[in-house]
Amino acid sequence: MFVDKLNTAWQKNESLVCVGLDPDAHKIPAHIGQERHFYDFCTAIVDATADACCAFKPQFAHFAAAGRENELADLIRYIRTNHPHHVIILDAKRGDIGSTAAYYAKEAFVRYDADTVTLNPYLGLESIQPFLDYKDRGVTILCRTSNADSDWLQNSDEPPIFERVARRVREWNSTGQCMLVTGATYPEELGRVRTLVADMPLLVPGIGAQGGNLAAVLRHGLTESGNGLVISSSRGILYAGQGVDFAEAANTAALQLKAEINTLR
Amino acid sequence: MFVDKLNTAWQKNESLVCVGLDPDAHKIPAHIGQERHFYDFCTAIVDATADACCAFKPQFAHFAAAGRENELADLIRYIRTNHPHHVIILDAKRGDIGSTAAYYAKEAFVRYDADTVTLNPYLGLESIQPFLDYKDRGVTILCRTSNADSDWLQNSDEPPIFERVARRVREWNSTGQCMLVTGATYPEELGRVRTLVADMPLLVPGIGAQGGNLAAVLRHGLTESGNGLVISSSRGILYAGQGVDFAEAANTAALQLKAEINTLR
Repeated sequence: MFVDKLNTAWQKNESLVCVGLDPDAHKIPAHIGQERHFYDFCTAIVDATADACCAFKPQFAHFAAAGRENELADLIRYIRTNHPHHVIILDAKRGDIGSTAAYYAKEAFVRYDADTVTLNPYLGLESIQPFLDYKDRGVTILCRTSNADSDWLQNSDEPPIFERVARRVREWNSTGQCMLVTGATYPEELGRVRTLVADMPLLVPGIGAQGGNLAAVLRHGLTESGNGLVISSSRGILYAGQGVDFAEAANTAALQLKAEINTLR
Repeated sequence: MFVDKLNTAWQKNESLVCVGLDPDAHKIPAHIGQERHFYDFCTAIVDATADACCAFKPQFAHFAAAGRENELADLIRYIRTNHPHHVIILDAKRGDIGSTAAYYAKEAFVRYDADTVTLNPYLGLESIQPFLDYKDRGVTILCRTSNADSDWLQNSDEPPIFERVARRVREWNSTGQCMLVTGATYPEELGRVRTLVADMPLLVPGIGAQGGNLAAVLRHGLTESGNGLVISSSRGILYAGQGVDFAEAANTAALQLKAEINTLR
């Protein structure tokens, strides 16, 4: 079950850190040859940070804009083979209905073989169910996103849409397949979600560049057992160093985030 | 400008029909060889239906689940070359923020070279702006989707979320780049959207298999000049015939829908 794999990953690595894999051609160190540099760069980052994290989150658009889907598929295969206890979150934010949603589920779970995929709730259950039908995989549904303009739709009613999403996803979670995206930039609202969903895992972007407050996130988001959070960092780890020592720098940055979190929890 | 291309397409072809390109390996006629059957099937459909429609809407997931992105790119290139006045709507329902949204925009407009792409409004303006930055392209934003469970989020407040999306997108439309998705299964709500957005184009799925009422859609959705709608049909055209005559059958089905619409408007 998805939640079991995540629990194991949290415990095995003593870490809530998720390393976001957002390869940017302009930032990949120049000494990496260009032929398959997304794959080469990301696998090096994966090996360098595996001891510091519980999950990897490859971001679809970075690969797709460059036509490098095959490198994405190979990267996920690499993680599965070499780090089988790490959770693989495909960040693709899909959202469609019916047979089309079934094709998106096939893309995420068969073609790319991810453990879970990020999904958008705007279309309701018909856009989630085809993913839930893969009983050994998870769904990671946008709830309260980290950006400034998320308010106008997600937080302008009473009860706010993001709370209704949380309640609804809790209903869908009887099989332990669900996770919610709650941005670090709104720690109090993250806390309201935590209250609504008991110990459902929360994926938390927005640490680092976006300015989310780590201590507040942990205060509001940890479960009683001291986990429940998957705290994602991308650029702060990937591009900690830009020279031949990029992997070492990524390792240091990831271990530092892991330690910072573990000191606070 | 996007809206100019659409206006030309409506007039040139005297049609509001959009042919959805959803290739399904199980339904493609067997006599088409398998090597590039998505491309071969879809280009045959395109040629057979071009005189009956104003737009083509390739659906991303159908290609992606099978790892056939290159056929999708080639298909769009084929449409641009052979039917340059037809609008190309990439149906991918993207929704992410910041630099990631910029990569999705690059995917849609550079890699695939679509005229417009479907987008999800859940994350707000930060998920739309990077697409609007391509001034000669359009954005097609989900407003009121055609499925049953769209109500719980899109239509449970006052004013309902779908109306707020319509108002907001109208603000973003100063450059004539915006279109809204309003399902044929809710024609009265489509009419409320029409009132809110003046003559902004509406993309209307849900005719055919989903049971939308064509006459009601036209009554509520046409602009004063008798267009304003892009009425999408996929399966009813693509799989009208399943033998060697599939293209002829698709031509007949598309012309029939065009005529049915033109009789009613």
